[in-house]
Amino acid sequence: MADTAASTAEGPTIALDAFGGDHCPGPEVEGAVTAARAGNRVVLVGDRGKLEHELGRFPGWDSLPLSIHHASEVITMEDSPAKAVRSRPDASMPVAFDLVRQGKADAVMSAGNSGAMLACGLFKFRRIKGVDRPALVTSLPTRATDGWVALLDVGANVDCKPLNLVQFAIMGAVYAGWKHGKARPRVGLLSNGTEEGKGTDLTRAVHELLGAHGSDDFEYVGYAEGGGLFDGRCDVVVTDGFTGNVALKVAEATGRMVGGWLRKAVTADWRSKLGALVLRGAFGRLRERMNPDSYGAAPLLGVDGVAWLCHGGASSRAITIALQQAARSVDQGLTAALADVLTRNAALVEAAKSRGNDGGNEAAAAAKEG
Amino acid sequence: MADTAASTAEGPTIALDAFGGDHCPGPEVEGAVTAARAGNRVVLVGDRGKLEHELGRFPGWDSLPLSIHHASEVITMEDSPAKAVRSRPDASMPVAFDLVRQGKADAVMSAGNSGAMLACGLFKFRRIKGVDRPALVTSLPTRATDGWVALLDVGANVDCKPLNLVQFAIMGAVYAGWKHGKARPRVGLLSNGTEEGKGTDLTRAVHELLGAHGSDDFEYVGYAEGGGLFDGRCDVVVTDGFTGNVALKVAEATGRMVGGWLRKAVTADWRSKLGALVLRGAFGRLRERMNPDSYGAAPLLGVDGVAWLCHGGASSRAITIALQQAARSVDQGLTAALADVLTRNAALVEAAKSRGNDGGNEAAAAAKEG
Repeated sequence: MADTAASTAEGPTIALDAFGGDHCPGPEVEGAVTAARAGNRVVLVGDRGKLEHELGRFPGWDSLPLSIHHASEVITMEDSPAKAVRSRPDASMPVAFDLVRQGKADAVMSAGNSGAMLACGLFKFRRIKGVDRPALVTSLPTRATDGWVALLDVGANVDCKPLNLVQFAIMGAVYAGWKHGKARPRVGLLSNGTEEGKGTDLTRAVHELLGAHGSDDFEYVGYAEGGGLFDGRCDVVVTDGFTGNVALKVAEATGRMVGGWLRKAVTADWRSKLGALVLRGAFGRLRERMNPDSYGAAPLLGVDGVAWLCHGGASSRAITIALQQAARSVDQGLTAALADVLTRNAALVEAAKSRGNDGGNEAAAAAKEG
Repeated sequence: MADTAASTAEGPTIALDAFGGDHCPGPEVEGAVTAARAGNRVVLVGDRGKLEHELGRFPGWDSLPLSIHHASEVITMEDSPAKAVRSRPDASMPVAFDLVRQGKADAVMSAGNSGAMLACGLFKFRRIKGVDRPALVTSLPTRATDGWVALLDVGANVDCKPLNLVQFAIMGAVYAGWKHGKARPRVGLLSNGTEEGKGTDLTRAVHELLGAHGSDDFEYVGYAEGGGLFDGRCDVVVTDGFTGNVALKVAEATGRMVGGWLRKAVTADWRSKLGALVLRGAFGRLRERMNPDSYGAAPLLGVDGVAWLCHGGASSRAITIALQQAARSVDQGLTAALADVLTRNAALVEAAKSRGNDGGNEAAAAAKEG
C-alpha cells in the first residue's frame, strides 16, 4: 500500500519518528532539514513544541518540504516493545506508521526501539502475503573496493525456524539487487564453519532446503563463516536475528576499536602526528569507508509497507541518508518487488513450511558418547 | 592427570600434533624448534620421515629438547570429527592425546580440526567431574591499552543448554584469572541487546540463573552486546559455540579487512608512502595489537587434561606462543583450578541442571499476535 499512496510528482513523503534515537530530536531534525533542502519531503512526528523549538536553529525551514505532525508520547529503548505499542498509541513511532496507513505518508523512518518497530510493522502494516516473519537487513562493506554484503536478520527475530531463514534468503536477494545492483545475488548461510557437518539443527535444515531447490532469483553458495561476510564470496548472508545482531555489532565495534587504536598511534608523538598530517587524505577515505552512517540504515523487509530503521545513536547525516534511502525504496517499488519474488519462489517456501527444525548434530552426539 | 605426569625439573612436555594445520608440518616444525630453543620440551607427533626432512632445515635440532613420535595417519579439516577419531586411532592428533594418557607428555597442542580436538578430549581425557560440555576459550584485545576479554565457547558446542553456559561462565572466570590476572572477573552474557527482554530462551534462562546466584569467583554483569566485547566492561563473555565462533571470526576478519584498507590507503601514491614511512613504528605496534598470532591460542576447558588449539592457518610464531601457553597452563595447574572452582560453585551448577531451555519470548509472541 505504501508504495504509492502519498507519492506525487514531487516524490514520496517520509514520516520520521523524531523521538526515537538516543539523542532525539536533535539529529532527527537536523537530518530532516538537510534531506528537505535536497528536495525530500519529510513529516516530523512528535511533540510539536519541542520540534518547533529545535527547528528554530534552521532559519527558513518553513519554506522547505517539511512539516510537523504532533504526537504526545514517546517509546524509549527500554520499553517492552509490544506492550508499549499497545499502551501508547499516541507515541511518535506508531503515529508515524498511522500516517502511512492514512495515506499521508509513503514510508516510516525511525532511530528508535527495534522491537517496537517490528511490532508496529506487524500491527500497522501487516505482513506481505505468505511472509512468516519480517527481517531487518543492512549492508556492510567488504574487502573489495566498493564491495558490499547484505546481512539479515540483524535483530528482528531471535528465534527462527527454517521457513524464516529461507524467506530471509529470498528477501535478502531482492534487497541486494535493489540496493547494490546485483543481478542474481550469491546467498550464503552464516555458520561456524564451511564443512557440511557444521552448523546447528536450524542451519543444516536451511542448508539442505536452499541446496535442493534452485532459484532464478539467487544463487545459494553454501555456508559462510564469520570471516566470509567480508571476503566477497557472498552478496547476501542469511542468519537468525540473534546471531546477525551480534555479528553486525561485533563488526562495527571492531572497526571503531581499530580506528581508535590508529588515532592513538598517529597522535602519540610529533613524528607520528607529522606522518598523519601527510596521510590525512588517505585516513579520511578510510574513515568514510568504515562509517556506518553512510550505509547502516536498515529496512524492515516483509511487512506490507516501507519502514526503515537507523541506529539509536544515528547522527544527523545517518538520518539524512536513511531518509533518502527510504524515499528511493518507495520510488522504486521495493515492497512490490519483494512480494513478486516471494511468489515466484513459492515452491521453495512451501518446502520450507513442511520442514521442522531437524538436522543431524554431530557435536552433541560426540558429547553424549564421550 | 596431565598436570603432573611427565613434568620434570626441566618443565612440562607438550605433544604437538604436527599434521593438524592448513600448511602442516612447516609451521608446526618451525614453531616447535623456536619453542625448544627457548627451553620448552616438545614431542612432534606425525610421519617420522616427513618430520625429519622438515627438521633438516634447522641444523642442530637434535640437540634441542625436541623429539619425534611417529604417527602414520592424519585427520583433515574436512573429516567428520567423531568418525575420524574412531576410525583412525593412529592419526597424529589422537596419538598426541595418547602420549599424555601414557604419561609421556603433559599437554596436547594442535592447529587441526576443532571437532576432532573436542572428540579426542572427550574420548581420551574424559571430562572434569561435573562438567557437561567442554568449551574452547580465546582472548581478544579490547579498546583499552593492554585490555583483554576472554570469549567462550568459540566453537566446541553449537547447541547449548543453560547448564553449559553457566559452566562456561565459571570456567571462563578461572581462565581470565589465570591468563589475564583478573581477581574476580566480570562475566557478561552475549546477547542482541542489553535490555531484559532481549536474548533467546537460552540466554534469558542463563541471565536469570547467573543473576540469582552470586559467586565469590566472578561478578555477573548481565547482557553484553556484540560491541560490549571490546568496551572493557567484561573480562569474560559467555555464549554458545555457534554464536561465539561467528563473533570471533567476524572480529578477526574485520580487523584484517581494516588493516588491508589501511595498507592500500598508505601505498596509493608517493605522498601516502612517505607518510607511512614516517609512521612505520606506530603501524608496527598497531599490527602487533591486532595480530591473533600473539593471543589466539585456545585451551579446551573442562576436559581432564591440557589441550590447546590453534587456528588452522597458524603461523610458526602462533605455534610457538601456543606451545609456551600450554606449558605455562600445565605448570600453573589450570585444570586443577577449574575443577576446584567448579566444585566451589556447585549450588549454581545444580540450579542450572534443574533448569530447562525456558524463558519468555516477546518477539515471537509479538509475531504470533501480529
